[in-house]
Formats: sequence, C-alpha cells, structure tokens
Amino acid sequence: MRTLGDVGEFGLIARIERAAGRPRGRGVVLGIGDDAALLRTRPGEDVAATVDALVEGVHFRWDRDAPAAIGWRALVANLSDLAATGARPLGWLLALAAPGSLPLARFDGVLRGMLAAARAFGCPLVGGNVAAAGETSLTVTALGAVARGRQLSRGGARAGDRILVTGTLGGAALARARADRTGGRVRHAPAPRLAAGAALARLRGIGACIDVSDGLEADLAHLLDAGAGGPLRAELDPARVPVPRGFHGACRRLGLDPTALALGGGEDYELLFTARPTAPGAAALGHRLGVPVAEIGRIRRGSRTPAGPPPRGWRHFAD
Amino acid sequence: MRTLGDVGEFGLIARIERAAGRPRGRGVVLGIGDDAALLRTRPGEDVAATVDALVEGVHFRWDRDAPAAIGWRALVANLSDLAATGARPLGWLLALAAPGSLPLARFDGVLRGMLAAARAFGCPLVGGNVAAAGETSLTVTALGAVARGRQLSRGGARAGDRILVTGTLGGAALARARADRTGGRVRHAPAPRLAAGAALARLRGIGACIDVSDGLEADLAHLLDAGAGGPLRAELDPARVPVPRGFHGACRRLGLDPTALALGGGEDYELLFTARPTAPGAAALGHRLGVPVAEIGRIRRGSRTPAGPPPRGWRHFAD
Repeated sequence: MRTLGDVGEFGLIARIERAAGRPRGRGVVLGIGDDAALLRTRPGEDVAATVDALVEGVHFRWDRDAPAAIGWRALVANLSDLAATGARPLGWLLALAAPGSLPLARFDGVLRGMLAAARAFGCPLVGGNVAAAGETSLTVTALGAVARGRQLSRGGARAGDRILVTGTLGGAALARARADRTGGRVRHAPAPRLAAGAALARLRGIGACIDVSDGLEADLAHLLDAGAGGPLRAELDPARVPVPRGFHGACRRLGLDPTALALGGGEDYELLFTARPTAPGAAALGHRLGVPVAEIGRIRRGSRTPAGPPPRGWRHFAD
Repeated sequence: MRTLGDVGEFGLIARIERAAGRPRGRGVVLGIGDDAALLRTRPGEDVAATVDALVEGVHFRWDRDAPAAIGWRALVANLSDLAATGARPLGWLLALAAPGSLPLARFDGVLRGMLAAARAFGCPLVGGNVAAAGETSLTVTALGAVARGRQLSRGGARAGDRILVTGTLGGAALARARADRTGGRVRHAPAPRLAAGAALARLRGIGACIDVSDGLEADLAHLLDAGAGGPLRAELDPARVPVPRGFHGACRRLGLDPTALALGGGEDYELLFTARPTAPGAAALGHRLGVPVAEIGRIRRGSRTPAGPPPRGWRHFAD
C-alpha cells in the first residue's frame, strides 16, 4: 500500500496540482506553485477570508467517514462561512498536515471530495501547504469577494427582528447518529448556501446572518452576543424549526429526540438570519433566495435566563 | 497549571481577541469574531494569499523552542511569502489546533510571539479558528495586496540572469545547531523582507523571486523548475554566499560545515531573486532595497547534472 511518505512532499504537491488542474475564471491571477496565490476582485468589492480545520479523531474518523465525504465537508464548512457573509467564492488554499504513513488512497479520496466541492461551488484551489504531522488535519482557507458595505455579519440583530432559517435542520446530526448506530458510513453531503447568501446581501431589511455549523441554538447565541443596543434574547418556536422529510419517523426508529437534533445538531450549513419587521415575509424571502425560508422566532430585548441550560451545540475542548 | 481545556473554545477565542486588540488600519473592514474577515485593497491591487503550518514535533519542540519564538516564526514564515511576492500585508488568520491539555502559559507565549511579529510588520490578526487535536499546530494564512501586474513570482528566471540574495544565510541553521548541541533554546528571530520585496516589485529587470525558507539550494531549485524557455541550471559561487559576522568561527567551534549550513539551512527568510544583466548591480540594488544584496551566481541554459546530489534543504515526508 503506497503512502504519503512514498511520494514525498514535492510529489504530493505535484499530485495535488495535477488533480486540481489549472484554475479557471478571471479571478485567479497566480495559482498553485508560487509563494503566494494572487486573486483579483472586481472594482468596489472587499475580500472575505475565513479558515476552518477538520482534525482526525475530532471532526472525522477514517473508520466512519468516507475520505471523499471528509474532503467535501472540509471545503463546504468554509464556503458556508463565505455564504454567511454574502460573498462569492474567489479561491481556496489547503494546509494539509498528515503522517507519512497515511495511505495515498485515503489522501486521494479526501482530495477528490475537496475538488468535487470546489468545482460544484465555483471555488478553485489556488495554493496551500503540506507538512508532516502525527495526525491528519485539513485546514482550509476560503477567500471570497463581496460588494463594499453590502456584507452580512453576525452583528446586526435588533430587538423586534424576526428569526429565519433556510432549508432544513437536523439532517446532518441524524446522518451521524444513524452511522454511529449502524456502524455504517455517514451519508450526508451538505451544500453551502452561496446563492442564498449573495441574494440576502443585496436585500434591505436584513439584520444579522450566520451559518448553522455548530447547531441552531449555539449559532443563534452567537447572533445574540454580537447584537448591538443592549442584551438580546431569542423567542424560538421549536415546532416551527424546519426538518427534512421523514425526520421525525427516522428519529423515532433510532430512539432519538428530534427537537434536540434540530436545535442542537451542527453541520447543516443553512443560513440563520434576522429580518426587520418591515422586510418581506418568509415565503417572499424564500422566493428571492431561491430556497425555502422558515420564520422560527423573534429577537427580544433582555438577558437570557442565567439559570437556563447552555445552548446545545458543538464546542471544542468541552468535556 | 491551567490548560486550554480550562478556558474552553469560546474562552480561548475571547482571550485571543483581547490580546490582539482592535485591528488598526483602513484595510480591515471586519475583524475577528465574524464568519469571515473582510479586507479592503486599494484600487488597482490584487490580493496575495499564502498559508503555512508549524507542527509540534516537526517544526518546533516545546523543550527546545521558546513559545514566543515559535509564534514569531509561524507568522514570519508567512509574511516572508508575501515579501517574496512583493505584497504589503493586509491581515492574517490563525488556525490553532491543540490538545485541551496544552498549558495555557505555552499558548499565551506562542500568541505573544505571533502578535509581536504581527505588530512589528504591520499585519493585524483578523480571524481564525480553534480546534481540539492530539498535537499542537499553528496554521497561519497571510493576506497581502500588490499592484496589479507588478507582483514577483517564482517563474521569471531566464538564462543569463544574475542570482542575488538579500542579507545573510545560514544564521538560522547555526542557531538551531547550537541549541541542539548545548540543549539551550533557539535564539534567532528572523524578519520578513517586506520592504525589500515591495521595492523589488517596483523595479524593472527583475526575473524570479522566492524567499529562502527551505534552504538556498532547495529554493534555487524551485526557481529553476519554474523558469520558462527550456531547462535551466544555476552556476553558484559558494564563496560569495553572504553569511553572518562570526559565522565561520562559530561553525568551526561547533564542528559544523559552514558551506552546508549556508547552502542548505532554511528559515533565514532572505529574498533570493534573479535580475537581467542590464539591471542595476548588487550594490545599487541593495541601496534601492534598503538591505545588503550579494550576487552569488548566474542562471544558465541546460539541465542540472542528473548524477549530482539533490539540493540540500528541508523536505517533508523525507526519511
């Protein structure tokens, strides 16, 4: 079985370059192979930049996740952050750290998944770094462009805002739970809401926006924390949180709490945003965004109950 | 002893935000704390992006490297890539992966070193990611801006070009060797040649440029590989490779080969570049770049001798 150590650092870089091909699109001035990549925005645009890592044993397990699915998620997590800013993708960089003993077939699978997502969502690989390490990690930096002053951010929620979410929640958590129960592979290929984010950035009356990566409650807490004008709390109606078709039945069969999964499960990569009362209704917003939108609650003035449970969701270094 | 696990993911992010302070400069539209950072270039500029990782046990050792020195190097390695492109820094993102058991004091030291370099070289921290992992790694993405069409790249060397280098080489390798022999800490705080790179990007008659991160021979090989118009080789005069004051004596005392260190030692972060015969001489270039410049050889047409030894220098996954 061939390993990373067999092809070596420069062999690996050449392998990545071959698989990625020459980046298309006028945004890439200088791609893989130089000290820095060079990207071009259009006049009047700012550059959005985000970084995220998937670590072996923490974010993925070779025995549970298909290599291509790991790669797909690594890229989608970052593209979703661009979507939450309203940016269009310009390009991405890969920092791969892995042991020399990593089977090349695993690496190739991860790369295939990353490049499939890169092609699907129009974000070419433009550079990166490979380094030997004791465990495998994939650190992806995604760069995008957004019209000046039109970006979405976490810090725009106000008391009175309606809380809305695209698509459905809980599907990723259900897929993970099912794989855990059955010992099978996780079958879930999330998509970043890039077109919806870009459309949202062009609308008036939008407050804050974040992508649901940690889980609805956890990410909503980020919006409340970042909101201005005094402490904010959320009135959420769990019954209105949209879930995938067949979700309740599947949860019942697996003995899972559907509400916990929908409110606490991460990695759905939907957009969670607030809108002023005067902004269009959920159906009209869904039409503009090209994706179903549900209204699930309201932002209110006041502190969250200190005695209440902490928001459900993913947290690093937590016991 | 407090650890990362004691402060948790969001406590750690808050700690980083506090230490970094609010980024200054008009280039940062949106800094730490949102889904993506937003950076602004000036009209007519492209965005340069580079990523590099320092991995525990591979690039640094807690018992040999002072935490602040590790952090400094993590940032300088990336800023040096921006320098080699001729870019001015816009901002950087940190992807930290570390075990929850990492002593907070070590993390604080690393962070202090990174932020010291960030301030010294005018590149504010604008975002990042923290993740639990089995080993510590610091993945830094640096973003810069360069006037369109004026960027330096690896791919500009031509037969007949003179080979030049800024500053001195071998100092970093000597410091590492000394620390290995004495069991002491590595004392070496390299600086990225940002001003020199930016000045070089404005000059005419410059061929290719790269920073000396892997070692002179290894990085020169990258320039030869990236050159156009048929295979290229380098005629290098080892006696003209500039070394730090007292370098030969120090090597002699430690029983080290000074030529091997100067030609093979990495992490000096000097700029290695080529210039057309008609470009100014080394002294005049040094004056324009604000740093000593030495001419050390010539680019020639023809293949490198296949029987010769491979270039000395750092390579990942090598035995």
